[in-house]
Amino acid sequence: MDKKQVPDIVVARLPLYLQTLNRLEQEGEYNTSSKDLGKRIGISAAQIRKDLSHFGEFGKQGTGYSISFLIEKLEDILHVNKVWDMALIGVGFLGHAIANFRGFQNHGFQIKCIFDNDPEKIGSKIGDFTIEDGRNLAEVIQKENIQVAMITVDAEQAQNVANQVVKAGVKAILNYAPVKLIVPKSVQVQDIDPIIELQHMTYYLD
Amino acid sequence: MDKKQVPDIVVARLPLYLQTLNRLEQEGEYNTSSKDLGKRIGISAAQIRKDLSHFGEFGKQGTGYSISFLIEKLEDILHVNKVWDMALIGVGFLGHAIANFRGFQNHGFQIKCIFDNDPEKIGSKIGDFTIEDGRNLAEVIQKENIQVAMITVDAEQAQNVANQVVKAGVKAILNYAPVKLIVPKSVQVQDIDPIIELQHMTYYLD
Repeated sequence: MDKKQVPDIVVARLPLYLQTLNRLEQEGEYNTSSKDLGKRIGISAAQIRKDLSHFGEFGKQGTGYSISFLIEKLEDILHVNKVWDMALIGVGFLGHAIANFRGFQNHGFQIKCIFDNDPEKIGSKIGDFTIEDGRNLAEVIQKENIQVAMITVDAEQAQNVANQVVKAGVKAILNYAPVKLIVPKSVQVQDIDPIIELQHMTYYLD
Repeated sequence: MDKKQVPDIVVARLPLYLQTLNRLEQEGEYNTSSKDLGKRIGISAAQIRKDLSHFGEFGKQGTGYSISFLIEKLEDILHVNKVWDMALIGVGFLGHAIANFRGFQNHGFQIKCIFDNDPEKIGSKIGDFTIEDGRNLAEVIQKENIQVAMITVDAEQAQNVANQVVKAGVKAILNYAPVKLIVPKSVQVQDIDPIIELQHMTYYLD
């Protein structure tokens, strides 16, 4: 399938469908419909059917979707039918929170190594991880063939860290630093910034 | 101005422009162009000019934009020319990280109160804040006239917390719980979920 044929805005909604289906499965449901899904997510049933139609025919007229089947298909499409190793760079409060986050592994991801530049932090433990020296970042990422990095350093350091991880082979960066990273076109970046989201909402408030 | 005339996807980009302009100003710059801004953000100059044209004429042919003027205008448009009080609900690792985040105040926001349900946490301090009893949530939010809430409780509790804060008058929720909240149409919700962003990126990886 040509990836370019599916608009990115459609791709962006697929993880949301998968999240909702996982939740339905946890709740003991076996089947769902685009109407039910849409109600849960706040998207129209027609939109969901249209989004999914980019990838095939997953539902049956009248009976809707088999939840486990649609989960399997979405995991295939999003390439999370396997576990991606991740590097976490920066162990402030946020890095600490992410290192302790339990939700990665069941959704296709696991932290493999954690780095910081602070001599007082290097060698100490977070959960099961020993914080490694940031100077060894590129070497470890390359050796472990890590393709996903989470950057939780300060805005001032983030671009430098991004340059290093990209050079070492990282293809996807989840960026928590409040700065727009410049990376080659072949590298994916998604930003997580509460200010951006908050200001988006206050536009609509008085 | 009729809010409905501006597509939400345009509104979503405005905080990014503001963030970049703030950074340019910090770097000592006085003027910029849609070309420069676009390069920094990874958006075309034409798109930036088109987005801003929804709100007026902010640049001058040949000299571009005055950074301080455009910051002021964007702060007006996004309603962050004032400081919004926020409630933070849930003091796990993530709530802890957010409570200690220094970036809110200069960008239109400040945490006003922090809640948790854990008797061992209630009454203890995080930075300058004393953690308050979650049972007093609605009362405090109403009394303090708080319109923005950040929810960092578990997925299972999030909808219940959302119902409470909405009933108490909250109009915008930044939701860190991995669940789609159901709220009245008059309430804004933005979700922050690393899994969603990571899966969005792995779609494009092999």
